[in-house]
Amino acid sequence: MDEMLEQKYEELNALLSEKKHRLFLELAGDLSPVDLADFLASLDDETLLTAFRLLPKDVAADAFAELDSDVQETVIRSTTDTRLGQILDELAVDDAVDVLQELPASLVKRVLRRASPETRALINKFLSYPEGSAGSVMTAEFLSLSENFTVKQAIEHIRGTGIDKETVYMAYITDGRSMLRGIVSLRDLLFAAEDTRIGDIMETDILSATTLEHREVASELISRYDLLALPIVDNEGRLVGIITVDDAVDVLKEEATEDIEKMAGIAPSDKPYMKDSVTSIYKKRIPWLLLLMLLATFTGGIISHFDGLLGSYVLLTAFMPMLMNSGGNAGGQTSVTVIRALALDEVQLRDIFRVWYKELRVALISGITLGVVNFIKTMLIDFRCDFSPEHLLTAAIVSLTLVLILPVANLIGASLPILAKRLGFDPAVMASPFITTIVDAVSLLIFFSLATLWL
Amino acid sequence: MDEMLEQKYEELNALLSEKKHRLFLELAGDLSPVDLADFLASLDDETLLTAFRLLPKDVAADAFAELDSDVQETVIRSTTDTRLGQILDELAVDDAVDVLQELPASLVKRVLRRASPETRALINKFLSYPEGSAGSVMTAEFLSLSENFTVKQAIEHIRGTGIDKETVYMAYITDGRSMLRGIVSLRDLLFAAEDTRIGDIMETDILSATTLEHREVASELISRYDLLALPIVDNEGRLVGIITVDDAVDVLKEEATEDIEKMAGIAPSDKPYMKDSVTSIYKKRIPWLLLLMLLATFTGGIISHFDGLLGSYVLLTAFMPMLMNSGGNAGGQTSVTVIRALALDEVQLRDIFRVWYKELRVALISGITLGVVNFIKTMLIDFRCDFSPEHLLTAAIVSLTLVLILPVANLIGASLPILAKRLGFDPAVMASPFITTIVDAVSLLIFFSLATLWL
Repeated sequence: MDEMLEQKYEELNALLSEKKHRLFLELAGDLSPVDLADFLASLDDETLLTAFRLLPKDVAADAFAELDSDVQETVIRSTTDTRLGQILDELAVDDAVDVLQELPASLVKRVLRRASPETRALINKFLSYPEGSAGSVMTAEFLSLSENFTVKQAIEHIRGTGIDKETVYMAYITDGRSMLRGIVSLRDLLFAAEDTRIGDIMETDILSATTLEHREVASELISRYDLLALPIVDNEGRLVGIITVDDAVDVLKEEATEDIEKMAGIAPSDKPYMKDSVTSIYKKRIPWLLLLMLLATFTGGIISHFDGLLGSYVLLTAFMPMLMNSGGNAGGQTSVTVIRALALDEVQLRDIFRVWYKELRVALISGITLGVVNFIKTMLIDFRCDFSPEHLLTAAIVSLTLVLILPVANLIGASLPILAKRLGFDPAVMASPFITTIVDAVSLLIFFSLATLWL
Repeated sequence: MDEMLEQKYEELNALLSEKKHRLFLELAGDLSPVDLADFLASLDDETLLTAFRLLPKDVAADAFAELDSDVQETVIRSTTDTRLGQILDELAVDDAVDVLQELPASLVKRVLRRASPETRALINKFLSYPEGSAGSVMTAEFLSLSENFTVKQAIEHIRGTGIDKETVYMAYITDGRSMLRGIVSLRDLLFAAEDTRIGDIMETDILSATTLEHREVASELISRYDLLALPIVDNEGRLVGIITVDDAVDVLKEEATEDIEKMAGIAPSDKPYMKDSVTSIYKKRIPWLLLLMLLATFTGGIISHFDGLLGSYVLLTAFMPMLMNSGGNAGGQTSVTVIRALALDEVQLRDIFRVWYKELRVALISGITLGVVNFIKTMLIDFRCDFSPEHLLTAAIVSLTLVLILPVANLIGASLPILAKRLGFDPAVMASPFITTIVDAVSLLIFFSLATLWL
C-alpha cells in the first residue's frame, strides 16, 4: 500500500516535469485529498505552485485543507486573490478556520477580504472560539429537519440539501429559536414508515457539549457512546454546530501526543517533527531542562552535606547512580500509570487512599525483589565474592536503601499527578523527569543516613 | 453530565434495594449500555447478579459486552446455561469473541456448548485470529448487496436485513466467490436515481486490510481516510468482516496507552488500573526495574574506576546527580519525540541523518544555555561568590561537561528508537528509562575524564 503510493507520487512527479498536465490531472484526481496533500508537500515550492494552479478548484480546496500550515502559507502567498476566494468558498467553515488560525495576521486579512460577507461573518464567529474548545473543532455544515416533516419529506429534504453537509447520517431538529429539540439518524428514517412524523421518532434524550467545553471532553463523549457526531450548543442551548467522529479521532490522537510530550518534559508541538525548526524545538525543551537542572541543586546539596562520609567511604559513591535510577524508574512507572488512569477516567481524586494502599504493596514486594537481587549481585560481581564484614555491611546498606526507596518513590509518583489534577493543573507534567529529580534527593538522603548510622 | 449519571446510579441502587423491580427496569432501560455496565460494575457481586437477572436479554447482552472481563466472569459463573445461550446469541460475534478471549478455558467450553452450531463455528474462526490482528477486532455483521440490484432494490434489501448489522451506512458488493468487488455508501444510494444499477455507482478503488494485518494499521487507515468502516479480507481477498470507526477509536486509544506504558518501562496492561491486582502490576513493572538496576552496574564501575580522583576531590560528587539528570532528561526528550514521530509516520528510517543533524543543533544551543546558567548558578550559589581559581576551574569543568553531554544524549536518544524499529522491535521501549541509564554512564565518563585532565 505504502509502496503503491510512492510509485504514484513518482509517476505524478514525472508527468509534471514532462509538462503532461492532462495526464497529471487524471492521475491526481484518483488520489484522496490527504494523499494528494502529501504529494504536494513533497515538492519544491515552484513545482508545488505549478501543480496547485493546475488543479480544479474543488480538488485544490480539499487537498489545501490537508496541507501543513507552512505549506498553506507558501501557497497563499503566491495565489491570486480571485483564486483564493474560490478556494475559500469551497472549504468547509471549520477547515477554513483551521487554515486562518495558523496564518500571520496580514495574510488572514487578505484571505478574509475575498470571502463573501456571510462566509466572513461565520468564519469570524468560529475564530472567536478559544483554541482547544469544542467550538474550535466543530463544523457548521449539519443537516436540519423540521419535526413536522414526515419521513418521506425528510428524506426528500436530505436529498435536496445534504450534498454539502459534513454528514448525512445524523439530522438535527431545532425549534424556531434554534434550540436543539431532537436527533434522528438516517438509519431511523430508513426503518420507519414513510408517513411517520419526525417528531414521533426523533431521539429527545440528547448528548451534547457546549462550544466552550474542552474539545477532548467532547471527543471522549463520541468515543464512549460510539457516536457518529455530537451536537454542539451555545450557552443558551442553541445548536451551532456538530463534531463528527473523524474530527474526534484527530483530536484524541493529538491529545495523546500532547500528553506523551508533556510526560517527557516537552511543551506540546503542533508541527510534525521534521517540519519543526531547531529553535522551535529548543524553546519547547529548554524550560524543563533548566528547571530540572536547578532543582538538582538540592540533590547536590545533600551530597555536599555528607562529604565527610563520602571522603572516608568513596566506595559508596559507586552505588549512587543505581539507587537514584531505581527510585526514579519506580516513581516514573507509578506516575505514568496514574496519569494515564486519570486521563482515561479510571481513577478519581477521591481514590487517592486506595491508590496509595495499592502502590505501597507493589513497592514493598518490588523493593524486596530489587534488594535481594542487588545484594547477591553486589557480593558476587562488585565485591568479587570477598565476604569481608565491611563488604557485607555495605551491600546490606545498599539493599536496605532499595527496600526503603521504593515505597517513597511510588507514593510520590502516585500523589503528585493526583495533587496536580486537584489544583487544576495537567497531571501529565508530573511524569518521570520531575518525579525522578525529587526521588533522587530522597533516595540519597535515605542512603547516606543509613550509611552514617552503620559505618 | 457526570453528576447526572451518579444521581441515576444512586436512584437505581435505591430501587434495587427496595425491590422496586419494574421502576428499576424502566430507569435502567434509559441508560446507554456503557453507562449501565458502569453501574453494574459498581455493585457488590450479589446485587450485580440480581440486577443482571432482571434485565431483558437484549439489554443484558448489550451491557454485558461493555463489562470488564473480571465482572463478565462473575456473571457467567452464576448464570444458568439457558440464559447464557440467549445472551450469547444476542451478542455481535466480535463482542462474543472479546468476552471468550479473556475467560478461563473451562468457562469458554461451557459458554460455547450453549451456542448454535453456526454461531459456534463463526466464533471459533474469530478466536483463531491472533491477538492484535485486524481479524480479532473486526465484526462479521456487515451489509452485502448484489451489483445487479437497482438503488431501489438495494434500499429495500437494507430495510429488510440491515437491522442487525453493525452499520447500515456502508454496504459491500461481493462476487460468487466472496471476493470484494465494490463499496457503496447509503449516502451514494440516497443521491442516486432509483433505477440506477449498484454496479454502476459502487466505488471499486477500495481500501482494505487483511485479517492478519496489525489492528493499529487498519485503524490508522480509518483515521487517515476518515472512513466509517474498513473491509477486512482474507489472504485470498475474500471479504470476511469490517472494522467500524468506533472500534478503530478504541484500538487507537488502547495503542496510545500501550505506547505510554512501554515508554515508562511497564508491560502493557489490558485492565483498568483500579481493577488490576498488586501482583499483576508488580509483574508488569519488575522486569524493567531489575534490568535497569543491573545495567546501572556499569555506571557504578565507571565511578569505581575514578575513585582516586573522587577521593581527592569529594566536591565533584555533588555535581554527579545534576549531570546525570540533565543528560537523561535531554536524551529522554529526544527519544520520546522521535518515538512519537515514528508512530505517527512523520519520520522514516531513511531520515536518520536529517534527525541527527537537527538534534545536534538543538543539543548545541541547549548545552550552551545549560552550561552558562550552570556556571553562574554554581559560582553564585554553590560556591557562595568565592571566585578562587579552584572553584572557577571546577565550575568550568561542570559547565563544559554539560555542553558535551547534550549532543551525546540527543544522538543516543534519537538513534536507539530508530535502531529498534530497524531491527523490528517496538521503538517505544527505547524511551527515557533505558536512555537515561546509558546516558548516565557516558555523562560520568566525560565528566571524570575532563576532571582528570585539568585537576
